[in-house]
Amino acid sequence: MRLVTYRASVEAEARLGAIDGDLVVDLEKLGQARGVALPSTMLAFIDLGPQAVSAASALMAEAKGLYPVGVATPLSNAKLLAPIPRPRKNIFGIGLNYTEHVAESAKTLDTSADLPREPVIFSKPPTTVVGPGDPIVHNAAITQQLDWEVELAAVIGSTAKGVSREDALKHVFGYTVLIDVSARDCRRAGQWIYSKGQDSFAPMGPCIVTADEIPDPQTLDLTLSLNGVQKQSSNTAYMLFKVDELIADISKGITLEPGDIIATGTPAGVGAGMDPQEWMWPGDTVEAEVVGIGKLRHPVVAA
Amino acid sequence: MRLVTYRASVEAEARLGAIDGDLVVDLEKLGQARGVALPSTMLAFIDLGPQAVSAASALMAEAKGLYPVGVATPLSNAKLLAPIPRPRKNIFGIGLNYTEHVAESAKTLDTSADLPREPVIFSKPPTTVVGPGDPIVHNAAITQQLDWEVELAAVIGSTAKGVSREDALKHVFGYTVLIDVSARDCRRAGQWIYSKGQDSFAPMGPCIVTADEIPDPQTLDLTLSLNGVQKQSSNTAYMLFKVDELIADISKGITLEPGDIIATGTPAGVGAGMDPQEWMWPGDTVEAEVVGIGKLRHPVVAA
Repeated sequence: MRLVTYRASVEAEARLGAIDGDLVVDLEKLGQARGVALPSTMLAFIDLGPQAVSAASALMAEAKGLYPVGVATPLSNAKLLAPIPRPRKNIFGIGLNYTEHVAESAKTLDTSADLPREPVIFSKPPTTVVGPGDPIVHNAAITQQLDWEVELAAVIGSTAKGVSREDALKHVFGYTVLIDVSARDCRRAGQWIYSKGQDSFAPMGPCIVTADEIPDPQTLDLTLSLNGVQKQSSNTAYMLFKVDELIADISKGITLEPGDIIATGTPAGVGAGMDPQEWMWPGDTVEAEVVGIGKLRHPVVAA
Repeated sequence: MRLVTYRASVEAEARLGAIDGDLVVDLEKLGQARGVALPSTMLAFIDLGPQAVSAASALMAEAKGLYPVGVATPLSNAKLLAPIPRPRKNIFGIGLNYTEHVAESAKTLDTSADLPREPVIFSKPPTTVVGPGDPIVHNAAITQQLDWEVELAAVIGSTAKGVSREDALKHVFGYTVLIDVSARDCRRAGQWIYSKGQDSFAPMGPCIVTADEIPDPQTLDLTLSLNGVQKQSSNTAYMLFKVDELIADISKGITLEPGDIIATGTPAGVGAGMDPQEWMWPGDTVEAEVVGIGKLRHPVVAA
């Protein structure tokens, strides 16, 4: 299933939906029409576990594209929000997780050229999240080095503490696309949260594809372009630490919970690694895609 | 006011309370008895703004220590939890914010001996929070360098974005005590979240003292002892970046929200700075106090 959080009209509240062709289906309303209790928000749906995914999938399949009036909305009329508009905690980010990005970072940033021996974890507050199409804010008072990073993000489906690599993917609810916007000149004593944690620095979406449709998350092409010029192009096969390793590693010390988001790192091609360096400025448009999940398109605007 | 989150008995739900001598007063129930709508949780109370503090203070003052049956509980019968048992986002931590701690850290950790020119911000996930008396977990599989850090923590009362230093303290709801437990050998590529972000690494409490009772947060003695031996003793006067500067600085890029917690850094005397170095081990007991707010006492236990 391709799940979204959306408004059916400008005034409508944000609700959980599933994509069916060119329609968005309101899962709570579809459930009500069929006597199945489904919730109205993504987090509540994730909390219900795999049975909710199975039940919703079955209702969608039965419908064969025909829905009661008021249950489905043309996708073109809907405003998509971030699939999880307000995470319950910080997003976990992974730095230096593609070989060539480690090399390009070491050239101009203060990171080592050696491949990390363990995942390099950082965090982005929930206030970083914006939805598809929302502006990325360029605050010239604090940065002149606003950079892009396309990433596959894994959404946790069930509580994970001390899980093995073998069991790790069972704890994934699904996958989405995240741009890990980074103000390179806002690192402080090496810490990245201010650099990566400013408001609007985590565009996310357009949907969550449930894990049953992506049995192997290490096979996905991902690309990013700025003003139509491709800057990043790679495949999640080249991650140093795979999604299952990341979950096993983090969960050794930190309990992962339903709805938690792990942004799995970016491949080579960021602005900091260019010669000369390139940055995002107001008026720019950035497009990021993980093929099979979807594409984000965001304007950069002045604060 | 001294506000707590507590259980009135072992089976009771967690509720918002205020300390009156040797009693804990259930603010929602006190309000119900007097026709004033007060909430049952700390976060809901913070969300209501300064008027809720005034209204609750007035009801407490009127009571003169005499409460209707069921409204007050002997403090000795109550189980205190962290004042905010589950923050809505990561805790913001500040590193290297006392001069002598900068020096001791540079001796043995990978930090600079130069004083930071801007606050060094890091984060702790909400899953780090434990309440007074709860165990600090020593996970020998991932750390042999578990360290202590006593800190004053500021709790945000109202949304702050781009606030001036002059206005910053108006956004503080109150203050509490936080131990920034740190596994020094879990830093990765310089990032601190795994080192400081493991489950149980943020003991917090025992209460929040509202900001009206602490007009100047830069005058507070703070101490920490391990197994009865004092390790840290300083005063918040020696912070490099004061509470108002921290709020102004963070809010330049990151929106601070009601209930957000800023742990303002620790003074000298951590185990990493000792010669030879000292660490916490299962069986140890750590006590941390900010004078005028309260004392935390925690056992260290094996995972």
